[in-house]
Amino acid sequence: MKLFEETVESKTLFRGKIVTLRQDVARLENGALASREVVEHPGGVCILALEEDGTTYTVKQFRYPFGKVVEELPAGKLDGPEDHRLAGLRELSEEIGATPGEFIYLGCLLLSPGFCTERLHMYLARDLHFGPVHPDEDEFLEICCTDLDTLYERVMAGELEDAKTVACILKAREYLKREAGERT
Amino acid sequence: MKLFEETVESKTLFRGKIVTLRQDVARLENGALASREVVEHPGGVCILALEEDGTTYTVKQFRYPFGKVVEELPAGKLDGPEDHRLAGLRELSEEIGATPGEFIYLGCLLLSPGFCTERLHMYLARDLHFGPVHPDEDEFLEICCTDLDTLYERVMAGELEDAKTVACILKAREYLKREAGERT
Repeated sequence: MKLFEETVESKTLFRGKIVTLRQDVARLENGALASREVVEHPGGVCILALEEDGTTYTVKQFRYPFGKVVEELPAGKLDGPEDHRLAGLRELSEEIGATPGEFIYLGCLLLSPGFCTERLHMYLARDLHFGPVHPDEDEFLEICCTDLDTLYERVMAGELEDAKTVACILKAREYLKREAGERT
Repeated sequence: MKLFEETVESKTLFRGKIVTLRQDVARLENGALASREVVEHPGGVCILALEEDGTTYTVKQFRYPFGKVVEELPAGKLDGPEDHRLAGLRELSEEIGATPGEFIYLGCLLLSPGFCTERLHMYLARDLHFGPVHPDEDEFLEICCTDLDTLYERVMAGELEDAKTVACILKAREYLKREAGERT
């Protein structure tokens, strides 16, 4: 098996502010043709901002597709081909008003690789310096402070469901445990 | 703040095999109107299948939106309002030919709550009994066996990027550590 699909046709059906929808035809490795729906998304970045005493920050906002408030780590979309590190620093400043002395890359996530091009980059921010928040116009957020151990317990209890939030909290915690192990 | 958005208009732009695209108008809490692009997706399930000696299973497949092979835990879409537990058992049987004696729910993930209704359910499968695999027609997979510790190291090294795979491996590992702690 070569695990490859070749694009035979590609048609853009919709260009929105957030997503672009394409319907392609792909030739599979057995020669058969298959329809491929592709949602193009610019990708994004999320940040676990951690203070020395263990305090972290989450934001609650109404998530229209689910019709409910979802609690997530601070995050935002990339503006086109923007550098994700700069985008992360901007979001952190906009949403919780913090500038970090340390900004550690924790890897990326492919959120729905079956149909969507969205790629999300995760960061751990430390040595935080606070200034005013600069929320986007028409962005309504409630900022919450919680310590990392509590966030971890809430992930394990299923109280936090946002995928980037779950993955970033668990991965950051492993990163911090390894770092502490190396220091001792 | 009440963190609520009210639907004022809703228009379905596309109904595909995988996704449905809507463009809605929502009234925000300050009274302003905003466009909301919504990708409807039936949701899915992913499974970490674990043998007593630590062996786990992943699948490699070509993911058309990224134009590359992605390694993921066995997973699949729900067929409409299907029970996610039954869907998980079916996918496990189709993709790796296993029937589990134990099938433990690990919670769900909202993959892209800003624009997409996809909700993914995670399971840990143990006490595995193997029969023939039943892959979907036109589904090309390569099945890989790895032990859980190696999967964890590959998550930490950024070699596994699929969001459900990262979240499910890290959460299952925490679940197993707690279970082992309770036993001793």
